[in-house]
Amino acid sequence: MSKKLTSRADDYSKWYNELVVKADLAENSAVRGCMVIKPYGYAIWEKMQAELDKMFKETGHQNAYFPLFVPKSLFEAEEKNAEGFAKECAIVTHYRLQNDPDKTGKLRVDPEAKLEEELIIRPTSEAIIWNTYRGWIQSYRDLPLLINQWANVVRWEMRTRLFLRTAEFLWQEGHTAHETKAEAIAETQQMNQVYATFVENFMAIPVIQGVKTESERFAGAEDTYCIEALMQDGKALQAGTSHFLGQNFAKAFDVKFANKEGKQDYVWATSWGVSTRLMGALIMTHSDDNGLVLPPSLAPNQVVIVPIYKSDEQLEAITNVVNGIMNDLRGNDITVKFDNRTTHRPGAKFAQHELQGVPLRIAIGARDLENGTVELARRDTLTKETVELSNLTEIVKGLMTEIQDSLYNKALDYRNNHITEVDTFDEFKTVLETKAGFISAHWDGTAETEDKIKELTKATIRCIPLDSKDEDGVCVYSGNPSERRVLFAKAY
Amino acid sequence: MSKKLTSRADDYSKWYNELVVKADLAENSAVRGCMVIKPYGYAIWEKMQAELDKMFKETGHQNAYFPLFVPKSLFEAEEKNAEGFAKECAIVTHYRLQNDPDKTGKLRVDPEAKLEEELIIRPTSEAIIWNTYRGWIQSYRDLPLLINQWANVVRWEMRTRLFLRTAEFLWQEGHTAHETKAEAIAETQQMNQVYATFVENFMAIPVIQGVKTESERFAGAEDTYCIEALMQDGKALQAGTSHFLGQNFAKAFDVKFANKEGKQDYVWATSWGVSTRLMGALIMTHSDDNGLVLPPSLAPNQVVIVPIYKSDEQLEAITNVVNGIMNDLRGNDITVKFDNRTTHRPGAKFAQHELQGVPLRIAIGARDLENGTVELARRDTLTKETVELSNLTEIVKGLMTEIQDSLYNKALDYRNNHITEVDTFDEFKTVLETKAGFISAHWDGTAETEDKIKELTKATIRCIPLDSKDEDGVCVYSGNPSERRVLFAKAY
Repeated sequence: MSKKLTSRADDYSKWYNELVVKADLAENSAVRGCMVIKPYGYAIWEKMQAELDKMFKETGHQNAYFPLFVPKSLFEAEEKNAEGFAKECAIVTHYRLQNDPDKTGKLRVDPEAKLEEELIIRPTSEAIIWNTYRGWIQSYRDLPLLINQWANVVRWEMRTRLFLRTAEFLWQEGHTAHETKAEAIAETQQMNQVYATFVENFMAIPVIQGVKTESERFAGAEDTYCIEALMQDGKALQAGTSHFLGQNFAKAFDVKFANKEGKQDYVWATSWGVSTRLMGALIMTHSDDNGLVLPPSLAPNQVVIVPIYKSDEQLEAITNVVNGIMNDLRGNDITVKFDNRTTHRPGAKFAQHELQGVPLRIAIGARDLENGTVELARRDTLTKETVELSNLTEIVKGLMTEIQDSLYNKALDYRNNHITEVDTFDEFKTVLETKAGFISAHWDGTAETEDKIKELTKATIRCIPLDSKDEDGVCVYSGNPSERRVLFAKAY
Repeated sequence: MSKKLTSRADDYSKWYNELVVKADLAENSAVRGCMVIKPYGYAIWEKMQAELDKMFKETGHQNAYFPLFVPKSLFEAEEKNAEGFAKECAIVTHYRLQNDPDKTGKLRVDPEAKLEEELIIRPTSEAIIWNTYRGWIQSYRDLPLLINQWANVVRWEMRTRLFLRTAEFLWQEGHTAHETKAEAIAETQQMNQVYATFVENFMAIPVIQGVKTESERFAGAEDTYCIEALMQDGKALQAGTSHFLGQNFAKAFDVKFANKEGKQDYVWATSWGVSTRLMGALIMTHSDDNGLVLPPSLAPNQVVIVPIYKSDEQLEAITNVVNGIMNDLRGNDITVKFDNRTTHRPGAKFAQHELQGVPLRIAIGARDLENGTVELARRDTLTKETVELSNLTEIVKGLMTEIQDSLYNKALDYRNNHITEVDTFDEFKTVLETKAGFISAHWDGTAETEDKIKELTKATIRCIPLDSKDEDGVCVYSGNPSERRVLFAKAY
């Protein structure tokens, strides 16, 4: 725990991996590509879940739970969706182990217990859910159907990284059904906005809302809306997506309804999700060479209090004062922990809380008791100040807001300074190599150009921003006409 | 929705299956043995989760998340545990589908994408968790380690029933590590007590706490504590278990710690869990021939208000009054829903809310407005009364407590009337066939007798109650000496 992290300047990727492990967020498991989310990391995820769940319910959604398994015949019903996930899905073929007949003490798969039909572990649940919706939807009275599921999914990725890309991950997936195309598109947009609001207000990460190009769309979607964030190393990260699925799944699973005129029609669909990947975005947006930096909204402990004492009497006197402080702070909905462990010295405690990103540290010693003061240390700015005990609660309340806002504004400044308009491909390549970030450039709208640029630079079109203006120009690569700029970046 | 349920007297099992589906709790899915938990059923489960999670945290536990998969070599490391689950586990053998070379448009498992080592889908997580704990525990300072996980697990059961026994189910599993045997046993007992408190106070289901016989123990445990409930048909249901695992998993996964004297020792372990099976217990304890009966503590809507009106003006006047009622009730933490759907008549609404077990229904019509009254209908007793609007909030608050208590007491009376002491095997068989319930009888302590009784009667030893008294007697089957009575029953 006490060893220093690799600095971001030295090796950003190594810094990230070390931080995740040393700050007790997650670690690799014995299963290839699957992570263990440790209690401290999970506590942050729980806070994200609680807030998102509240926002989903406020917009009329209900939770439900659908099976982990998708029979192969259902999985392949929506062809594009199946093709998109076929290359990375875990497949259950047997349902029993038997003792090895060679008496080696090992178990082996029982060849007699082969499933008639293979089961795919859900990489996403459209297939199993739309197969279920067929039984739930008969009439327009059954619509809209607004459902969310919190679940684990599996995508057999070859290159994995803690939180950012793991074979199993946790997420939520909304699956809604609507009477009209317009209503489904409005839902798609609404949920993308919910994600943007959550990520900006709670995670303190500015995002750009946009739509994906055809080749970057979700497999089976007619349109994919997204929120794109920029990490400190100038690479983009897709933080959430919301898909307008048209009638593709309704047709594949034969989900029709009687509309108000009594005519049968296929249902319109959306799906939308965010995952434990958000943890990666949180870490890479705010943290520094000393470790994690958490926005107060998502910190399991917003404040930690460390006593500095030389005798049991001093500790007792400090504890009395701390009990009062904790009562006041908790009465103001601030989560606070008194780190009175006797097994660790103050220096070790400071280092740990810094590494774990606790937004505010209060140190209180014998002299503070005499003076009626405490020492505050902000994690985000690494600044300290001595303040009057009598004003402490108000000061802490103010700091919670200030730190939250300051983290957002710092990230926003960085992001805004890293959107570069370019008009030539040379410029494009130079900016990508020297400055990185988002590159705003004209594109001719073809998948060929998109592919070629990706091949040459590794940059992809992150999105066509929702607020992009009409602007005549020529494609940065092909020179063909273009009507608006899109955002390119290298991405996680 | 409007068709009557099969009565319990006619066919208890059919009544249960119909109720689960018609009350919108769950349904069977396209995957053999796996269920879909519908929004209304899931809302009840969420309430259970929230309360249990609070109780776990209050007793010092933290949540974390471990992989869905267990590599076969880890799965088999603790031999008894592996043997216990080997016959019912789903096995992942491949990680990719490919297009069928015969161009049938179907996908098939890619034979090139065979895993080097098979992955077992967790039927329980001791193996993957204890393999992880090895890296987390070095010294007594790392103990106790008190962790819980909310997750899905898979057990490939051949005969499944909604909630009671499904191939995939949702649960929580606590996994703790301790310095001493005594501390681990105390944890095992504490968590069994937490389950008993939850099930009695929130689910209004009386339980008997006890320990399992050796043959009914969790595979790999040294002792299994349990809570046993009695369903309305006289069959027992194991509602939760808490296991003292000794040092079995520590030894299998080599988890040692330096104790306070600096000596290396194996860690002592517990695990404990409850699952969506609790939903089955809830349904079968309180519900009646009209449908679900929910205790107020777990009802998604504690109160539903149905307007009775003949004109839009009447509905408007009623709505004004209802808004005031809802404000008052919500201010008292009572969840209330105004069922102002125009697509359904009052009679259909009454039937639906009765079927779905809403504890209290308020009907309010034009005459009520004139008289300053409303009509209350209790779901548990099916009784109605007209009360003054001015006292409504106090009356409803009182009824919430009264209904909760009344459901518990009714279940307790039934349970207590169905514990029968018998001293001969003839009596044993007669009681089992005529009255069912728990049979309190002497047993000689051998697995042979236990097996024989099970074979002859289908009754198993549910538990040795914690409060059972020393009492000399002779085994009801073998006539051999016995020191205490145990509880037998047929069970779910």
